[in-house]
Amino acid sequence: MTVSPMIHPVILCGGSGTRLWPLSRKSYPKQFSRLLGEESLFQACARRTRGPGFADPLIVTGDPFRFIVAEQLAAIEMGAGAILIEPEGRNTAPAVLAAALHLAQDAPDALMLVVPSDHVIPDAAAFRASVQAATETARAGHLVTFGITPSRPETGYGYLELAPGSSSTASTPQPLARFVEKPDAARAAQMLEAGNFLWNAGVFLFSVQAVLEAFRTHAPTLCDAVAEAVSGARRDLGFTRLAEAPWRHAEDISIDYAIMEKTPGLAVMPFAAGWSDLGSWEAVWQETGPDAAGNVVSSQATAIDCRGSLLRSEAEGLELVGIGLEDMIAIAMTDAVLVARRDDSQRVKEAVAALKARGAVQSVAFPREHRPWGWFETLARTERFQLRKILLQPGATLGTQSHAPRSATWVVIEGQARVTLDGAESALLPGQSAHIPAGRTHSLTNPTDAPLMLIEVRTGTYLGDDDVQRFAG
Amino acid sequence: MTVSPMIHPVILCGGSGTRLWPLSRKSYPKQFSRLLGEESLFQACARRTRGPGFADPLIVTGDPFRFIVAEQLAAIEMGAGAILIEPEGRNTAPAVLAAALHLAQDAPDALMLVVPSDHVIPDAAAFRASVQAATETARAGHLVTFGITPSRPETGYGYLELAPGSSSTASTPQPLARFVEKPDAARAAQMLEAGNFLWNAGVFLFSVQAVLEAFRTHAPTLCDAVAEAVSGARRDLGFTRLAEAPWRHAEDISIDYAIMEKTPGLAVMPFAAGWSDLGSWEAVWQETGPDAAGNVVSSQATAIDCRGSLLRSEAEGLELVGIGLEDMIAIAMTDAVLVARRDDSQRVKEAVAALKARGAVQSVAFPREHRPWGWFETLARTERFQLRKILLQPGATLGTQSHAPRSATWVVIEGQARVTLDGAESALLPGQSAHIPAGRTHSLTNPTDAPLMLIEVRTGTYLGDDDVQRFAG
Repeated sequence: MTVSPMIHPVILCGGSGTRLWPLSRKSYPKQFSRLLGEESLFQACARRTRGPGFADPLIVTGDPFRFIVAEQLAAIEMGAGAILIEPEGRNTAPAVLAAALHLAQDAPDALMLVVPSDHVIPDAAAFRASVQAATETARAGHLVTFGITPSRPETGYGYLELAPGSSSTASTPQPLARFVEKPDAARAAQMLEAGNFLWNAGVFLFSVQAVLEAFRTHAPTLCDAVAEAVSGARRDLGFTRLAEAPWRHAEDISIDYAIMEKTPGLAVMPFAAGWSDLGSWEAVWQETGPDAAGNVVSSQATAIDCRGSLLRSEAEGLELVGIGLEDMIAIAMTDAVLVARRDDSQRVKEAVAALKARGAVQSVAFPREHRPWGWFETLARTERFQLRKILLQPGATLGTQSHAPRSATWVVIEGQARVTLDGAESALLPGQSAHIPAGRTHSLTNPTDAPLMLIEVRTGTYLGDDDVQRFAG
Repeated sequence: MTVSPMIHPVILCGGSGTRLWPLSRKSYPKQFSRLLGEESLFQACARRTRGPGFADPLIVTGDPFRFIVAEQLAAIEMGAGAILIEPEGRNTAPAVLAAALHLAQDAPDALMLVVPSDHVIPDAAAFRASVQAATETARAGHLVTFGITPSRPETGYGYLELAPGSSSTASTPQPLARFVEKPDAARAAQMLEAGNFLWNAGVFLFSVQAVLEAFRTHAPTLCDAVAEAVSGARRDLGFTRLAEAPWRHAEDISIDYAIMEKTPGLAVMPFAAGWSDLGSWEAVWQETGPDAAGNVVSSQATAIDCRGSLLRSEAEGLELVGIGLEDMIAIAMTDAVLVARRDDSQRVKEAVAALKARGAVQSVAFPREHRPWGWFETLARTERFQLRKILLQPGATLGTQSHAPRSATWVVIEGQARVTLDGAESALLPGQSAHIPAGRTHSLTNPTDAPLMLIEVRTGTYLGDDDVQRFAG
């Protein structure tokens, strides 16, 4: 018996969309939200790739999300083979290529399982079994793309047409005839009827060598740029930052366009055990499992005489009540509320655009912001003061040195703090506080193994975002 | 020319309903909300009774609302002849009788204009003119009730039938034939068609002597109880607290049932210049003036492809977006959101009942709570801490003495504070803070003429509401 090369999951989570606003925002995309159950989509995705034969996942993400990735992996006690930081978003081809080149350094014989982080596949075991069933084909040098059994004449996805004589319900990879672009409604209905078309879900399995060969053949220029970005990458706090200058020359292109549609011998692994890309609130409603009246109602939400509606309260202490709603969605957060017809789910981006045009921060920013040392939430803010809840991870230090005319008061809520002010150190327990006069050198440390939670009140005439808080340990 | 007796407005604002939840709650009823424009309904009502011939209003309200009344009158620079506190709500008859008995002490020849505080009458000058036009009839000893020209076959109000030969569009009081109870739809349509029926709006004008005589004749037992409550009243911080024991014997009855329907010679003053009781969100939508698409959209609200809908954001920093809404209402607050079909406006009380059944504080409590010294808003609260924004009125003092195991930190945001801790005094400017260890004697004073705003962080194992904060100056 030969030892099979490991399957290295490559989780793509640099994307950011607005289709699930207000829960999903540019600064906190949907893969990091708990859209279904207690784990985020990213966490569920990472956990789904855990099992015999699977290595720790390699994560490709963007700079703004790196601490969310690290925190969410730690929360489910998983490690990462590497966390690659894209200097900026560049679609799937450069991301997959960077992952392949990175893996080639240490595991040149590996298989890569490329998975988007923001999809739902309820049956993880079935998914892993499907991946295992495709390994032989991938090891033989074929690029394998996973094809989802369509459940409706969807016009929002591309399709994979199977070669004549192959089976769309087979439990082994089947030869691909061709890629089909997003169809119109009539064509989608035809394909659903025909039975030999599957949805293209952006999930792939191939060997590092095979995919590198495909890139070299069909996207040589992209190869040069990305290879330079990978070889010039630098380590930073456990992350691997791809080199910025060459990365900016990498073409913004999907893996389908760059190589898949040009490579012969593609195989399709049919997958019928359930999948959704949660591309709209309509899809979230569907996947969460409506009750007998067709409603999905979160805790802290109340549906009175409603039908076919999704009611979600996304904040502690926020009650949402719907009366007489029919086929509606209502998403309530403390800084933003969306109410829409379920049929209009695809128009949520118009809401984001309207808020953006008005300069409302809710169009992009999330109430909680993640930093290397933990996170903070702005609870209240006027021209005169800013009130924030701050969490410092064990061992983390927060240092601020500012010349702005403002002062800060910290009150410990939970855990222990060590405060240094002009060189003098003091310890704070819950209920105790420290006052930092304007312009003084100071730092705040969590010297314990448990999180430190505190309230910060900043006052002063200027409270801009350029009040940089630096990570100092 | 003889000097006419003054008209003493009697503003009834002890009522509390749930029909405009979440904006209106038991602890903050709709008359105190800015439902239309920059003033509350109560403020608009008080201002409406201001003019030549009108005395300062006498306010009848409940204990929980006394500071809101005082604060809102001060904000529009109006005084009150008196603010009577009902020990508990007892419908309109005891309230009007108490006001009449109170007025009889100092102004026995006065006319009383009884007005509910939560109605809308856009044309204040027309209203005052209408009152003036009815004074002669009232001085002659008649009880005058104002009749609103009906604009629709409303089934939610009682009607006033005019005597044969009188005019429902006259500019002087007309004789009443009889009171008509809330009708069914057919009867309402009939009355609208007939033309000699007006809505009973609960607005009255009569002399103190005439109404007292009517009460003595038709409600002698009520007279005894209320007379005792008025003669036993005590002054408290500028309020007049009716005596509790006798008040509890006063019958819970409306002025219509107690005297109006039994007194002969009633007159009706027709009023056609516009009126609404804002009895539902539907009415608020109507009165606010829908745009060409039938929408009413507040600042911080966005309507995309909506029709006939009311979208209100009631908090700073809270964005509300509606997409594709048709004949809907959406009211967003930071602790509660209501979404309902406009046709279901009358069912809002079901929402309140559902929340009450679940023990949600939002069924009764408002985020901002008023106290003698100012107000506070709870910004965040867990088992371990409570975060509040506090406003201290000029000159006010806040004293807490607690044996609970908790401490407090105050940070001044605006204004100046004087803090006394174990007898030692210190002054705090914006940005400065004071820490009060658990169980220490302390007080907080606003020694200036401007409001003092501060943030309070309380921590400890118990943060119950029995942490009494007493007014000490």
